[in-house]
Amino acid sequence: MRIQRLTKDAKENLLEDLLKRSPNNYGQYEQGVQEILAHVKEEKDQAVFAYTKKFDHADITADNIKVTEEEIEEAYKEVDPKLVEIIRKALLNIRTYHEKQRQYSWFDSKPDGTILGQKVTPLHRVGVYVPGGKAVYPSSVLMNIVPAKVAGVDEIVMVTPPGKDGKVTPNTLVAAHEAGADVIYKVGGAQAIAALAYGTESIPKVDKIVGPGNIYVALAKKAVYGYVSIDAIAGPSEILVIADETANPRFVAADLLSQAEHDELASAILVTTSEELARKVSDEVDGFLKELSRSEIIRKSLDNYGYILVADTMDDVIDIANEIASEHLEIQTKNPYDVMTKVRNAGAIFIGEYASEPLGDYFAGPNHVLPTNGTAKFFSPLSVDDFIKKSSIIGYSEEALRDIHKDIEAFAEAEQLTAHANSIKVRFEGEE
Amino acid sequence: MRIQRLTKDAKENLLEDLLKRSPNNYGQYEQGVQEILAHVKEEKDQAVFAYTKKFDHADITADNIKVTEEEIEEAYKEVDPKLVEIIRKALLNIRTYHEKQRQYSWFDSKPDGTILGQKVTPLHRVGVYVPGGKAVYPSSVLMNIVPAKVAGVDEIVMVTPPGKDGKVTPNTLVAAHEAGADVIYKVGGAQAIAALAYGTESIPKVDKIVGPGNIYVALAKKAVYGYVSIDAIAGPSEILVIADETANPRFVAADLLSQAEHDELASAILVTTSEELARKVSDEVDGFLKELSRSEIIRKSLDNYGYILVADTMDDVIDIANEIASEHLEIQTKNPYDVMTKVRNAGAIFIGEYASEPLGDYFAGPNHVLPTNGTAKFFSPLSVDDFIKKSSIIGYSEEALRDIHKDIEAFAEAEQLTAHANSIKVRFEGEE
Repeated sequence: MRIQRLTKDAKENLLEDLLKRSPNNYGQYEQGVQEILAHVKEEKDQAVFAYTKKFDHADITADNIKVTEEEIEEAYKEVDPKLVEIIRKALLNIRTYHEKQRQYSWFDSKPDGTILGQKVTPLHRVGVYVPGGKAVYPSSVLMNIVPAKVAGVDEIVMVTPPGKDGKVTPNTLVAAHEAGADVIYKVGGAQAIAALAYGTESIPKVDKIVGPGNIYVALAKKAVYGYVSIDAIAGPSEILVIADETANPRFVAADLLSQAEHDELASAILVTTSEELARKVSDEVDGFLKELSRSEIIRKSLDNYGYILVADTMDDVIDIANEIASEHLEIQTKNPYDVMTKVRNAGAIFIGEYASEPLGDYFAGPNHVLPTNGTAKFFSPLSVDDFIKKSSIIGYSEEALRDIHKDIEAFAEAEQLTAHANSIKVRFEGEE
Repeated sequence: MRIQRLTKDAKENLLEDLLKRSPNNYGQYEQGVQEILAHVKEEKDQAVFAYTKKFDHADITADNIKVTEEEIEEAYKEVDPKLVEIIRKALLNIRTYHEKQRQYSWFDSKPDGTILGQKVTPLHRVGVYVPGGKAVYPSSVLMNIVPAKVAGVDEIVMVTPPGKDGKVTPNTLVAAHEAGADVIYKVGGAQAIAALAYGTESIPKVDKIVGPGNIYVALAKKAVYGYVSIDAIAGPSEILVIADETANPRFVAADLLSQAEHDELASAILVTTSEELARKVSDEVDGFLKELSRSEIIRKSLDNYGYILVADTMDDVIDIANEIASEHLEIQTKNPYDVMTKVRNAGAIFIGEYASEPLGDYFAGPNHVLPTNGTAKFFSPLSVDDFIKKSSIIGYSEEALRDIHKDIEAFAEAEQLTAHANSIKVRFEGEE
């Protein structure tokens, strides 16, 4: 891996480089996505079937678009029972963590009859997108469905592209069934997002769409935002490791590679105060590359967006980590919790040399759907928060309103909203 | 106002009708907005100044774009001291309510060395858009700034279009100063959104943009979403009143008009079980229309999107209220809290005949920036939540990881992510 000093120039180049991976720079696909959205909105099922034929080469109709109980039973027969056991263990951890995120309605009352509060309501119906294709990720199914379940969503509608044979990968079906999907439709791509956003004869309109997908899916989600809600737009995966001279170079190297293997746009960055560690990690990376099955992807991703940066001080290291705002951030230093207190921006923070990133992908419990591409500056991991919404509660008595009615009237009149003022005034007509 | 029976057809027509108000149907402005965004991204300040000249007819330069302390002092001299007092009282209520929304970092530890948690961090820099033009709303300034302040945002950057004289309305400046804006720039429209999203020589890039605006502002916000975060896209205002035979028709009528006066796209709907109330409210509306200063706007908005619907049962009333998912929902019935428990979708719920909607606009404390146009099905009022983000915390000891390392490796291998499996394996090399 390339090793660089963390100079001001190196920093600026790096930040600019990483932004090239943003889905905001894929304008050339937007026209095609808009066409798919418009077509599905208009023609509904027929458009969905036609696009599924075109893109997935599968014959899907109203009769077979919904995964049947038999298909799910079939899937269980094909999946290694040991994997089912592991999925159940992971599910327990994921549920336990997400239950701690629950938020509750509250109110505050005063003896004058004032009640102010906030009512928390789960979303009614949610769509979960699960990618198909080469890499099938049952873990992603769990991570998207569990927070919706814990939030209390009434109906979880999953969509995933079928193979040419019109079937869904067994691992995906088993994970969906274990996590608690209420219904699964065989449709993927922008056409699936359109179907969830507008509704078709077969697929009901949802309130929110979550789940990662390719660039077409990401752009389609962005386009329907406002019409329905969406989760953060997922970009390519990334890891940033903060390490000092106490870090184990073999662990650091292995962790960098775990993200680099995702795809050629994935980014793996080590920032360290130790030149020696930098060299050793680079050597370990070379060693692992000879063994790993996905080394071709890894090589490309490291060439594109892999960096080892050597900084003068730990404060400089933390600065660049905060500017990059990585999806995954590992802290492998002498006092990792000290460093954590200074981290502002990261999707998930892995602390200490045994908190390896894949632990979070599969097992620990926190969600692995995380903000990418610098969006950890303002977005959060997928959570129960994504599947609830709040309503303000305002209750006032005659007495409580009387105390302040003239102030409200004056404020409304200052804004020249006389009908606003009037709606307060009528309640005290003739009082003075 | 038109009075209709709440039939299935009436319901469908109404829902379709209301959706016409959605900013998603204003595609014809998108091209222009995209041009402004691209131009500001490229030319920065120069583009901002040129657009401000073109749209606001004001001469703004790097030297006068930032509101000075002198300008703020000047503004205080022009604003009625009584209004300043009222703003301060309102601010106290708004702060008190929003303080209750604060969320805290938490963690959960086990004796085996596992620490799982969630770290809450305020956003670093936030942009608040404040509209100028005909209607100037200092209350909106308070509602957008206070939750950011309470969340602990480091820097609140306000933007608002200048008048032809290059000045900002005094009420706006005073409200901004009272609420705690750190800096105010004289720029509005899509060019202001672009400046906040990309940064210019004068205006720093922010992490999130909030605040209502016209269609250009709404489309610009939607376009930069993902690059920065935004609040929900604001549509025209709306009120829905649920009332039974116990409601005071004069209060109901006055409350409907308070929203209808906002603009011609505003919607005011009464749904009631009482035909008598329906008729009386309609009469009261006619009476008020003769007196109110904004009666021309009100007439148009009632013609467009004003309805009185008479339903057979309170359950039918609540059903349509949930389907419309109104920004403001008033419940004026015998047992309003009973009805509230059945309300799923509403921005703010006003309970009882003295909780008039404008009370919430100005004074009670809950935010008046609320989801519109049916988006209360999935969006929440603006709140402290909008100005924080979360990071997962994952700490594991060697012991804790050893217990589960084979499960994680097996899961990763089932997903064919061998480098993921490897990053766990290296930590227990040679153990067996």
